Amino acid sequence: MTTNLPAFADVEAAQDLIGTYLAPTPLVHCSKLSQMLGCSYHAKCENLQPVGAFKVRGGVNLIGRLSPAERQRGVISASTGNHGQSLAYAGQLFGTPVIIYGPERASNPAKVAAMRALGADVHLFGRDFDEAREEVERVAHSTGCRYVHSANEPLLIAGVGTMGLEIFAALPAVEALIVPVGGGSGICGIALVARHLNPAVEIIGVQSASAPGCYRAYQQQRLDVAAPMATRHEGLATRVPFAMTSQMMWELVDRFELVTDEEIDAAMGLLAREAKLVAEGAGAASLAAALKIRKSLAGKKVVGILSGGNAPAEHLARILQNG
Amino acid sequence: MTTNLPAFADVEAAQDLIGTYLAPTPLVHCSKLSQMLGCSYHAKCENLQPVGAFKVRGGVNLIGRLSPAERQRGVISASTGNHGQSLAYAGQLFGTPVIIYGPERASNPAKVAAMRALGADVHLFGRDFDEAREEVERVAHSTGCRYVHSANEPLLIAGVGTMGLEIFAALPAVEALIVPVGGGSGICGIALVARHLNPAVEIIGVQSASAPGCYRAYQQQRLDVAAPMATRHEGLATRVPFAMTSQMMWELVDRFELVTDEEIDAAMGLLAREAKLVAEGAGAASLAAALKIRKSLAGKKVVGILSGGNAPAEHLARILQNG
Repeated sequence: MTTNLPAFADVEAAQDLIGTYLAPTPLVHCSKLSQMLGCSYHAKCENLQPVGAFKVRGGVNLIGRLSPAERQRGVISASTGNHGQSLAYAGQLFGTPVIIYGPERASNPAKVAAMRALGADVHLFGRDFDEAREEVERVAHSTGCRYVHSANEPLLIAGVGTMGLEIFAALPAVEALIVPVGGGSGICGIALVARHLNPAVEIIGVQSASAPGCYRAYQQQRLDVAAPMATRHEGLATRVPFAMTSQMMWELVDRFELVTDEEIDAAMGLLAREAKLVAEGAGAASLAAALKIRKSLAGKKVVGILSGGNAPAEHLARILQNG
Repeated sequence: MTTNLPAFADVEAAQDLIGTYLAPTPLVHCSKLSQMLGCSYHAKCENLQPVGAFKVRGGVNLIGRLSPAERQRGVISASTGNHGQSLAYAGQLFGTPVIIYGPERASNPAKVAAMRALGADVHLFGRDFDEAREEVERVAHSTGCRYVHSANEPLLIAGVGTMGLEIFAALPAVEALIVPVGGGSGICGIALVARHLNPAVEIIGVQSASAPGCYRAYQQQRLDVAAPMATRHEGLATRVPFAMTSQMMWELVDRFELVTDEEIDAAMGLLAREAKLVAEGAGAASLAAALKIRKSLAGKKVVGILSGGNAPAEHLARILQNG
């Protein structure tokens, strides 16, 4: 499996391609959060991407590299929303048909609507992301479309790794990177860059304690772990760890933390009130982890990946009312 | 009165000074809002400033230029919140005592708390901003502090004008600038820059129809206008137009629009849902105006000043619930 893994040069190549289509996102120093945390805290604002999440980097890198024939036939994938929006956005850029399977109950309706508005053919199937993914893997061949796995896909990992290049360009002295983990493509891409540019930077993964599949795979260094999947934050709602990203995380990630769904909600409220940024649960998980491990971050230059901002409005409203 | 007016060179000097203390704010292209508006819409994210509003630029420029003796004696001013936070922030940077008078009923409690957290001595006085301001003008002399008018103050106008320099650096081809107007310092500073760098750029002011003092002064080219003051968006809640900024607006501003408080609320909801940015009412007024005049903006490169993000959490929660 090692031959297939993306490398630093693939991230550089991805930056050359996606630079034409996506502007770098801001790295914002959060003054009040820094005071609360006792460190210099920066949010990498992937919520400000066109589709509201970092994944669009991977979608553009992948669809932008398809052959003309592949572009015409289209792509098919499973997604709880952001990965699918990303492919749909890139599909629109390059004129490529996109089919997305999302879980019937656990999909975020705003994300489904956004995928459809971008022209994707969206099917709702199964109880969770992994059931939708298994269905896609069953039907993909008959569609003639290229199947895009949301994590075991070097072009996606290299694409989202461009976040890392932008972070080092804006803050070369960064000391710790906190990255929410769904399937793991984001943290693997960033870790590729950080390990190449400064091996001393600490790379910290975060999952919800209600969906700790990748966390357990990381701790036990194996893929066949049992883990519950009950998080309400769909961006973190993967049940099983994936081979490629797990292998890379074992090698590249320094530390892995779990936070509760309630800690994530509280971090969403803090980001809106104190940093003026709308985060979805996955996007706020980095701040939730920073609060949890603040002692070990004291005095450091820290970047938390605000991976996405597609929070359901009524969920954010409830958090702001209770805050 | 003309001798005292700030000029483009003062904005350049302000940029040299504040660059040490404040990072440029992001200019974010808003993909979904651009689709809705039919133009290329960018938000200048002053909500991401340390105190959550553009005014901090003026506060740092003013207090940073005081003599050592003046710094020691301190400054006194009236504010509904953001101007006061700005002075308090700068006061903390330079070790200068800051006294702020805010209206007793119309102050935003979060802003008052933030001013106090930054070490300001906050007094609540009067029914509205202008009553608080009149009280400050009465007592200022006895305190020995330098009185800082929130609008008739060349150093504040030059300081906030640095927004304009950043906009032209990031988007030299900008064609229209939409700027919320409270006392008018923001639009005057930006207009100074735009008129110097590209006189063809359209400069559009916005006020709430519930507090149209500056709008009427602009339309009638005189200061003694009668206007109601009933907006719920305290960043726009000035009752009377000010001499210096009005004179500059008559000269430099192309067009002035009114939007209703309800249109502003709707724009706050759109910014949170579609652009992932938290705006207070004043900060969302630029988008409300863009929606209102969208026909005349069609196809253009537009920048809306998102002047601040200090919205009361429960107000934003209500908007998100109803959206």
